[in-house]
Amino acid sequence: MAIDESVRQHKYELSEDQMPTTWYNIIADLPTPPPPPLHPGTLEPAGPDDLAPLFPAALIGQEVSAERYIEIPGAVLDVYRQWRPSPLYRAHRLERALGTPARIYYKYEGVSPAGSHKPNTAVPQAYYNAADGITKLTTETGAGQWGTALAFAGALFGIDVEVWQVAASYDQKPYRRLMMEVFGATVHRSPSRATAAGRALLADNPDHTGSLGIAISEAVEVAASDPATRYALGSVLNHVLLHQTVIGEEALLQLALAGDTPDLIVGCTGGGSNFGGLAFPFLREKLAGRIAPQILAVEPASCPSLTRGKYAYDFGDTAGMTPLLKMHTLGHTFVPDPIHAGGLRYHGMSPLISHVYEQGHLDAVAIPQTECFAAAVQFARTEGIVPAPEPTHALAAAIREAQRCKETGEEKVILTALCGHGHLDLAAYDAYLSGAMVDEAVSDERFSAALADIPAVPA
Amino acid sequence: MAIDESVRQHKYELSEDQMPTTWYNIIADLPTPPPPPLHPGTLEPAGPDDLAPLFPAALIGQEVSAERYIEIPGAVLDVYRQWRPSPLYRAHRLERALGTPARIYYKYEGVSPAGSHKPNTAVPQAYYNAADGITKLTTETGAGQWGTALAFAGALFGIDVEVWQVAASYDQKPYRRLMMEVFGATVHRSPSRATAAGRALLADNPDHTGSLGIAISEAVEVAASDPATRYALGSVLNHVLLHQTVIGEEALLQLALAGDTPDLIVGCTGGGSNFGGLAFPFLREKLAGRIAPQILAVEPASCPSLTRGKYAYDFGDTAGMTPLLKMHTLGHTFVPDPIHAGGLRYHGMSPLISHVYEQGHLDAVAIPQTECFAAAVQFARTEGIVPAPEPTHALAAAIREAQRCKETGEEKVILTALCGHGHLDLAAYDAYLSGAMVDEAVSDERFSAALADIPAVPA
Repeated sequence: MAIDESVRQHKYELSEDQMPTTWYNIIADLPTPPPPPLHPGTLEPAGPDDLAPLFPAALIGQEVSAERYIEIPGAVLDVYRQWRPSPLYRAHRLERALGTPARIYYKYEGVSPAGSHKPNTAVPQAYYNAADGITKLTTETGAGQWGTALAFAGALFGIDVEVWQVAASYDQKPYRRLMMEVFGATVHRSPSRATAAGRALLADNPDHTGSLGIAISEAVEVAASDPATRYALGSVLNHVLLHQTVIGEEALLQLALAGDTPDLIVGCTGGGSNFGGLAFPFLREKLAGRIAPQILAVEPASCPSLTRGKYAYDFGDTAGMTPLLKMHTLGHTFVPDPIHAGGLRYHGMSPLISHVYEQGHLDAVAIPQTECFAAAVQFARTEGIVPAPEPTHALAAAIREAQRCKETGEEKVILTALCGHGHLDLAAYDAYLSGAMVDEAVSDERFSAALADIPAVPA
Repeated sequence: MAIDESVRQHKYELSEDQMPTTWYNIIADLPTPPPPPLHPGTLEPAGPDDLAPLFPAALIGQEVSAERYIEIPGAVLDVYRQWRPSPLYRAHRLERALGTPARIYYKYEGVSPAGSHKPNTAVPQAYYNAADGITKLTTETGAGQWGTALAFAGALFGIDVEVWQVAASYDQKPYRRLMMEVFGATVHRSPSRATAAGRALLADNPDHTGSLGIAISEAVEVAASDPATRYALGSVLNHVLLHQTVIGEEALLQLALAGDTPDLIVGCTGGGSNFGGLAFPFLREKLAGRIAPQILAVEPASCPSLTRGKYAYDFGDTAGMTPLLKMHTLGHTFVPDPIHAGGLRYHGMSPLISHVYEQGHLDAVAIPQTECFAAAVQFARTEGIVPAPEPTHALAAAIREAQRCKETGEEKVILTALCGHGHLDLAAYDAYLSGAMVDEAVSDERFSAALADIPAVPA
């Protein structure tokens, strides 16, 4: 092959003193705030008292804040600075392989200790709980990125972490459990016999593959029953998306360093935290009229809450223990196919992203998993990074657009979030490379059945 | 726990234009050069013609060069710049957990595409072969870090890569094989039935756990039999250590940024490439009288070539196909216990490091694996990075020194190389955490038997 001796800039790095010191709250810039969560009994807006058994006051304050910028505590900055600012890369070698005139950038969060964007919120959540004297946190995890992040954060702040991992992922990704254990956490296969919610589901179906909604029910049940234990959620809620905005704030600066303005911003969506973290600071600039990118959410064909769900009040968990959240939902009883992107197997979508989507600021598309893994292998063989299954959805969409640019000749600037590496997801690649991977089943009947379970809430 | 709100500098990063553009050849600064390799038949110094079937002329030239600095080609710099300069970290949280006045720094190579230091040499090796029109490379790998690196580099330069992986590691670390396959390589379990050397060993012992020496024999056999195929070695040879000196050159600059001078430089040694890469630029400064650190090599108790081997001419592989190398060796027939640090299971030591050791510039110590994993878990729970099993040996030695400093009150500056992450080695952590890991067997008889197999070479 012809060897190209040119030396190009691949990464755009910021110095530590360019790291954001505040989180950005997009609610301050929206014409209307998102609808509030409702208490499931009274159907009245849930107040701080309803959330107090689960979350520390500081996080509840952030959940309902209308402030535009919220200061990041020193102890959180101290941890962030180990790996932040994270690099923004220009995918020169992928572009060359595609023969596209498009310029593809990816913001890489796999450099964090847990290997994903999740420590951006795990660290402040552990911090605020530790500051409150809490010694134990429970949580759910899908693919395990979130559980690993909270296990890491718990180790730093002296908090025991107990994780319910969705059975499908627990079985597919044994190394993820091991990594959580290396960080000192205890991991249960969900549904588990450790909770009433889990036991009820296992009685019905001993081979249940689980879901994020079920794992949330289990973790919430244990936290609610012990005053010294609280719960931590890795996505969906406003304060979680808030913490993730460091991704987009840095990417804004880095893209400016590269001298480019984005035409397309594309991220994967499960609960929405990585997507919101990347997109919201750019959306602020778009709402202010300074840039005009398309912002595209990519969801798995197996769990298309934005493209096939209903915008309605629904439970955040399967057992119906959480407040009702106004969101795009497939129904809290929906159990997605056990695809490899376990982190995207959530029946709902962040209320904040759902609200922004309803207001017409985002587009969404669903992509089946074999196309995602084809994109991932091409990415690995050119860029050298093996992506986690979740961001392969965004990569597949980015490659679709780059191929379209090849046809039209457009030099579009595409920005995507590579929110984690796939080192602990290699069994999924094995399934793909061996030809054993199939696309997920998406029958209309299955979607209809779960949509019918969404509770009726008077407008 | 008390929360420390101070914000400290954890990482010392260089800009891309501070990345070295030359490799450093320590031979230029040694009072005497290392003894040459010998042709096993004639016992005369092996010349370029003897090596030409295996390596391209450019690498043979680097192997025997006396030039102090060798320019890095543009196409290699272009790939390096994706992750280089790699970060140097100050281990504040580990220091605090140890209660030590010592200051611990680690140079982290796990940020590379393969997750270790190995791409530093895999990329130039693939480049020089591609420039020569070679379309296939064979190699050995232990834990798989080297095979992954060459698979990655081969993908970039259009070269097919065929890897013989030591059976013990192949079985322990299935994800490593998968990662090599994601990058497009073919992987054999060694000893394999694909070579005469492998078949002979399997006939003797169908359950053979393999060794790096055996895997080298297999890869060399296949490369030597086909003119379009060459061989690549991931350690031991001068040109490999040369390529790794980017590690030490960067660390020198970064430690200066931190305002510190090293008192102890400690690295793990298998074939010696990570250790040489870190230590040689510092040894240059030491030989010039500008600094005076202790330089310490840490080897596994199962495979202690420096501390229990003989300094003698021996084969680089088990079947006796390579030139004779003057090195510290346990005997080319030595098969180490299948410890988890598969990358350190090599019977010999780099001739260049052996030579420097003989001249009194280095110290060496052997540490058993359970102490290493105890250090690794403490490191993971404080620094957030799960180390590969190989550098846990250096971490264990660094922690020993930091604990000594706690007793004496010395504020020593310790620099270590964290040459890779352990994401694909989590089964080893499982063995440790579950209590199943045992220290390696180190009977005198076993060492004596292999030492007796070292060929007699007249002085």
